[in-house]
Amino acid sequence: MTKYQLLTVLLLLFCLTPVRAEDGSRLWLRADASAQAKVTANKKSPTIDIAIKELQTNWHGDKVNLVIPAKAGIPSSAGLTKEGMTGEGYSITGDAKKGITISAFSEQGLLYGAYHLLRLQETGRVEYPLNIQESPQYNLRILNHWDNLDGTVERGYAGHSIWKWDELPNTISPRYKEYARANASIGINATVLNNVNASPKILTAELLEKVKAIANELRPYGIKVYLSVNFSSPAILDGLKTSDPLDKDVQGWWKNKVKEIYRIIPDFGGFLVKANSEGQPGPQDFGRTHADGANMLADALKPYHGIVMWRAFVYSPSNEDRAKQAYLEFMPLDGQFRDNVIIQVKNGPIDFQPREPFSPLFGAMKHTGVMAEVQVTQEYLGHSNHLAFLAPMWQEFLESDTYANGKGSFVANTISAIAGVSNIGDDINWTGSHLAQANWYAFGRLAWNPQLSSEQIADEWIRQTFSQDESFVEPVKTMMLNSWEAVVNYMMPLGLHHIFAVGHHYGPEPWGIIPGGRPDWQPWYFHNADTIGLGFDRSSTGSNAVSQYFSPLKEEFNDINTCPPPFLLWFHHVPWQYKLQNGRSLWDELCYHYDLGVQQVRDFQKVWDKQESYVDAERFQHVQSRLKIQARDAQWWKDACLLYFQEFSKQPVPYDIERPVNDLEQLKQVRLNISNYENASR
Amino acid sequence: MTKYQLLTVLLLLFCLTPVRAEDGSRLWLRADASAQAKVTANKKSPTIDIAIKELQTNWHGDKVNLVIPAKAGIPSSAGLTKEGMTGEGYSITGDAKKGITISAFSEQGLLYGAYHLLRLQETGRVEYPLNIQESPQYNLRILNHWDNLDGTVERGYAGHSIWKWDELPNTISPRYKEYARANASIGINATVLNNVNASPKILTAELLEKVKAIANELRPYGIKVYLSVNFSSPAILDGLKTSDPLDKDVQGWWKNKVKEIYRIIPDFGGFLVKANSEGQPGPQDFGRTHADGANMLADALKPYHGIVMWRAFVYSPSNEDRAKQAYLEFMPLDGQFRDNVIIQVKNGPIDFQPREPFSPLFGAMKHTGVMAEVQVTQEYLGHSNHLAFLAPMWQEFLESDTYANGKGSFVANTISAIAGVSNIGDDINWTGSHLAQANWYAFGRLAWNPQLSSEQIADEWIRQTFSQDESFVEPVKTMMLNSWEAVVNYMMPLGLHHIFAVGHHYGPEPWGIIPGGRPDWQPWYFHNADTIGLGFDRSSTGSNAVSQYFSPLKEEFNDINTCPPPFLLWFHHVPWQYKLQNGRSLWDELCYHYDLGVQQVRDFQKVWDKQESYVDAERFQHVQSRLKIQARDAQWWKDACLLYFQEFSKQPVPYDIERPVNDLEQLKQVRLNISNYENASR
Repeated sequence: MTKYQLLTVLLLLFCLTPVRAEDGSRLWLRADASAQAKVTANKKSPTIDIAIKELQTNWHGDKVNLVIPAKAGIPSSAGLTKEGMTGEGYSITGDAKKGITISAFSEQGLLYGAYHLLRLQETGRVEYPLNIQESPQYNLRILNHWDNLDGTVERGYAGHSIWKWDELPNTISPRYKEYARANASIGINATVLNNVNASPKILTAELLEKVKAIANELRPYGIKVYLSVNFSSPAILDGLKTSDPLDKDVQGWWKNKVKEIYRIIPDFGGFLVKANSEGQPGPQDFGRTHADGANMLADALKPYHGIVMWRAFVYSPSNEDRAKQAYLEFMPLDGQFRDNVIIQVKNGPIDFQPREPFSPLFGAMKHTGVMAEVQVTQEYLGHSNHLAFLAPMWQEFLESDTYANGKGSFVANTISAIAGVSNIGDDINWTGSHLAQANWYAFGRLAWNPQLSSEQIADEWIRQTFSQDESFVEPVKTMMLNSWEAVVNYMMPLGLHHIFAVGHHYGPEPWGIIPGGRPDWQPWYFHNADTIGLGFDRSSTGSNAVSQYFSPLKEEFNDINTCPPPFLLWFHHVPWQYKLQNGRSLWDELCYHYDLGVQQVRDFQKVWDKQESYVDAERFQHVQSRLKIQARDAQWWKDACLLYFQEFSKQPVPYDIERPVNDLEQLKQVRLNISNYENASR
Repeated sequence: MTKYQLLTVLLLLFCLTPVRAEDGSRLWLRADASAQAKVTANKKSPTIDIAIKELQTNWHGDKVNLVIPAKAGIPSSAGLTKEGMTGEGYSITGDAKKGITISAFSEQGLLYGAYHLLRLQETGRVEYPLNIQESPQYNLRILNHWDNLDGTVERGYAGHSIWKWDELPNTISPRYKEYARANASIGINATVLNNVNASPKILTAELLEKVKAIANELRPYGIKVYLSVNFSSPAILDGLKTSDPLDKDVQGWWKNKVKEIYRIIPDFGGFLVKANSEGQPGPQDFGRTHADGANMLADALKPYHGIVMWRAFVYSPSNEDRAKQAYLEFMPLDGQFRDNVIIQVKNGPIDFQPREPFSPLFGAMKHTGVMAEVQVTQEYLGHSNHLAFLAPMWQEFLESDTYANGKGSFVANTISAIAGVSNIGDDINWTGSHLAQANWYAFGRLAWNPQLSSEQIADEWIRQTFSQDESFVEPVKTMMLNSWEAVVNYMMPLGLHHIFAVGHHYGPEPWGIIPGGRPDWQPWYFHNADTIGLGFDRSSTGSNAVSQYFSPLKEEFNDINTCPPPFLLWFHHVPWQYKLQNGRSLWDELCYHYDLGVQQVRDFQKVWDKQESYVDAERFQHVQSRLKIQARDAQWWKDACLLYFQEFSKQPVPYDIERPVNDLEQLKQVRLNISNYENASR
C-alpha cells in the first residue's frame, strides 16, 4: 500500500465515522460510549444489567463493583434503613486505585448509583476517595403526561405524544426505552401516561394491552406506570346506570377493572383523578364528596398496593374567590381519606401562573397524604419558545415556610411525593426547545432532593448537555438562573396573574373577555384594574384568602406594608400612587419591572450569541432563534400590559425607560390561531 | 337675571365656543384670527386684499402700511432691482409706535412680506425696529404633484389627491384656497398638478376647464399652474400618425394645444416632461434627442412666456452603471436647448435614496438651465410613517461643492429653480403625519433661501405648528434635526442604496429579486454583497462614475481612503475587514450604524413622550403612534440588513450591541400588500 493509498483509506475511514448530529435527542446523556470499564455485580437482573452496561461503556475509570449486601453492610448514614424507604438509596465508595463500589438495598438503587457516578464524571466532579450516600426525599417522583389518545398533548409544546397508541402494542418505539433511561438517570420512578382530562377508553382491554407494552419497556429502569381515569368510566364503558361511588355495582365495576389491570400489569402504580373540575365528572355529580370518590378507588386498588392521586384543582363558578376554593373544598375532608389516597395539590392556589404564593393546602391537611404538582411544560411561561429555567421557581415554592407546625415548616416537608406535568413530546429534541430539557432534568433532581440548589442543577445540566468549558458554563448558568424572574418581570410582575390570552395562554390579553364565560376565566377577574389601583384584594377587607394561611404568614400577607412585593397584587388592590419601600409608586414600579424583563431577555441574547464557538451550529441557531422570539414577545407583553393598565392609571410611563413600540388597539387585534395542543409558532 | 342665570348663560356660551380640533388641518398657520390691526395699502388687487385680511385678523400690532412705491423708493440692499428678479422681494421696516411698512415692487411681494411679518410674530421673533429685506434666490419654486386623474397619488402617503377632478369645475373644494395660502406663506409660487407619468387626458378640453378652475383659486396667492404632459399626446389624443418632434403636424398640434391652454389659462406656467424614462414615451422613440423633444415644446410655449421642465431622470437597461446614465445622455446636448427649457435633475444620480452624493450634472451643464428636483414625499424614507425631517438632507445637497468653477461652486448656485415632489394628499392633516408637514414647510423655505439653516427652519415650524415653550421647542427640534441621519443609519448607512422592498419601497429587501426584471431594479445590482465585501465600485477600477465629477472631487471619491464615509459604499466595493479611520472594520461599522439608528428612534420616542403636556392629545397620540411604527421598522431594517449581509461577511455582530430579534428566513417571507399609491399601514 503506497503512502497515497494509506491516506485515502484513512480519509475514507474518517468520513465514514458517524458524526452524530447535535439535534438534542441525546438530552444530557452524551457520554461517548467508548469506555471499557470492568463492572461486576453480586446479583443479576434486567435492571442490574442496565447498570452494568451503562458503566461498562461510559465509565472511564477502571473497576466498578455493584453490591446488594445484607442490611448490616450498609452505612446507616446512607439513610437506607429509614422506615418506609423503598430502598432506592445507594452509597458510592472507593477510589481510582482499588476501584469503586456502589451499594444499595435494591437493584434500582444500584442503577441510580451508576447514573450518579456517571454524572460525576460528565460534570467533572469525580473526587477520590468517593464517599457518597444518597437516598431520595420522596418515594414517588412522577411525571404527569397530559397526552391524549389521539396523539395530541394538552399544553404540549414539543410535537405530538411520544406514546404511539396506534402502533402499540405491536410496534415498540425505541423512544420508550430512551425515555425510561433519561428518567432513571435523574431519579424519576413513575409516570402517568395519559391526560387528566381522561378518556374512559384508556381502561378498555385493547388499550390496557398497549399500556402493558409500554410498562414492559419502562420496568427495567424502575419506572412504574399509572393512568388517569375518568370517573364516569363505569357508565360510559359498560353502560352502568350510574357512576355513584357509593353504588355497589359501581364499586364492583372498579374492583373488577383494577383486578383486570393488575392481571395485565402486575406492578401497576395506580390512578390519577381529576374529578368535578373544569367539566370532568366526579363524585359530586351524585351528591358524594371527593373523599367518597377517592376512597372507592382506593379500596379497589388497596389489595395490589396501588394508590389514588386525587387532584385538588377544583373550583366552581361561585362568588367565592377561586384562590380559596380548593382549600374550602378539601379541608373539611381532612382525615376522611384512605391511607392509599394522596391529594395532588398544584403549587399555587390558582393554576401554574408565572409566580404564585404556595397553596394554603400545604401544611394544612394534617391527616391526609398530600403531594405537590408542578408544571414542567410551560403553559403559562411562553410555551417552548421562552427560556424559563424553573428550578428557582420550584425551589422558592418548596422552601416556602407554611408555619403549619411553627417556623420552619417548609412546603418540601409537608408533602410525601411530587408530580411534574411533563414537557415531553415526539420532537427530536424531546421538549420543543433545547433549553427546556433543563426543566425536565431539574424536576427529576429536585424530586430526588429538594435541597439541591438551582445553581447546582443548572451547572450539572449545562456540563452534561453542552460543554464543561467554564467560559460557557458560567454565563449560560447565570442566564438560566435569571430567566424565570425575567419572564415574571415582562409577563406578570408584583403578583399579577392570569392575564393571558384566553385559551392557548400564549401572549398578553389583560383586556380579554370570553363572552358569556365564567368570571374566573376572565383576566379582569384577576387583575381588577380600575382608576384607583390594581390587584386582587384577598386581604381581610377582600376575599380574605389570607385567612387560609397560618400565622404569622396570614398577617404578613394581609398587611399591604408587609406583604412581600412579589405577591403584592396577588393579595391587595393597590392604589396606583401607593409608595413601595423603594420609594417608587406602584405604577412606576410596574413599568420598571416590565422594562427590566425586556432588557433581561436582550441580555440573554447577548450571552447566548457569545457562545457560538462553544456550541454546535444546530443547537446554537435553534436556541438563538427562540431567544429572538422571546425578545419580541417580551416587548409585546410589556407594551400590552403597560398600555392597557395605563388606561386606568392615567400615569405616564417613566421617561427614563424605553417606550412602547406598539399601539394598544393594534395589540388588541392580535389573534394567534393556536389550539391548546400546540406550541405558538412566532 | 339672577346670578345663577348669568352663570348658566356664561357656561352655555363657553360650551358653544367652537373648540377647534387640533387635527393638523391648519398646518403652521395657527394664528387665532382675533386681531384687529389697521392695515392700509396704496393699491388694490385680489392679492393685496389677501395680504390686508391676513394682517387685519392676525397681526397683533397696531398699524401696517402696504406700499408699492416707485423703484427709487426701494433700498437697493433689498435686491429688488437685481436683473431678472420677478419682483417678489420685499422690505419690512418700522416699529410698534409709528407702525410698520411693507414695501414691494409687486402685489405678490407685499403678500410675502405680510406672511413674513406674521411668521415673526408667531415665532416670537419680532424685534423693533424692523429692518428686513428679502428676495428669493430662485424665481421658480415649484411643487410637483404625482397625482393621477383617478385620484390616486403615486408615492403619496397622505390619502388621495387633493384635486377632485370628478367634482371640478363645478365644485370647488375649500382646500384649494387653503393649499394656496399655505404655499404662499412659505414662498412657493408654482405647482404641477399631475403625475410626471402623465395621462394624455390632462390636455383635453374637458380637463383644461377643470385646471382653469384650480388656477383661478391659486392665482390670488401668486401660484401658477403647470402640467405634466405625455409626449405621445398628439397621437393618442388626436390620432396623429406620429408624435415625432420634427414632424410639422406634431409641432402644429402642440402649438394649437398651447394656444388653447393660454386661451383658457392666460398665466399658465408650462410643461413638465418625463420622456424616455421608465416606459414613458419620448423623442428617442422617433430617433430624436431629448433636445429635439424639449425644444419643440419650448417653441410652442415661447410666445406665452411658458417654460419646459424636462426631466433628466433617464436610464436604460444597458450595461452602463445607472448612476452614470443621465450625465452620459444629457452632457452631449449641453447648449442645444432653448432658453425656456430647464433640465430638471434629481438631487442624486439614482433616485431619491436616503442619502446620495449630488448628481454630477449639477455644475456640469454650463450652457443649459438646470433645476433641482427633490422629493418631499418619503418614497424611500419610510412613507409618512417615519419621522425624517429633510431640511438637513437638502441642505447637504445644496451646499455640496461641485468645483464646476473652482472651489466654492455650490450646487445651490448652479441651479436656477427648485422643484419638490409633493407629500400632500387629502388627509385632514395634509401630509399623512403631522411631523411630515415640516418637510413641505422646509422645502418652501429653502427654495426661497437655500442659505437658511435647518435649525432655523425647524425652529420656525415648531413654534408656529405646536408651541413656543422652550421646553418643547428645543428637544423636539433636536429630534427633528437628527431624524434624517437616524433613518440613514437604520436603512442604508455608509452609502448603501436601493435595497428596498421591490415596488412599494417600504421596508428592507436586500435579497430581493424581480424575476426577469432589469438588473438596475434589483437590490443586488446596488449592494454587490459577496464574500469579499460590500458596495458598488464606481471608482476608476469599476464603473468610473467618479470621472463625471470635477477635480479634486473625482480624486477624493476615487480613493477609498479619502472617500467620505457616508458615500463609501456608493463609490467602492469595500472588503468586510477594511479598517475605517475610526479603527473599526467595515462590517463592525455597518453594525454600529444600524444599531445606532434603532437607538436614535427609541430616543425620539422618549423625547416625544415627554412632550405630552405641551401638545393636544390628538396630535400627541398620532405622532406617538407613528414613532412606534418607526421604532419597530428600524429594528426590522437593522435585523434584515445585518442578517442578510452577515451571510456574506461571516462575521459576528459585535457583542456589545443589541442582538437581532428576527430570523432572516422569516423576514424574507414578509410581503406588504401595498401598491405604489398608498401608505404602508403598519
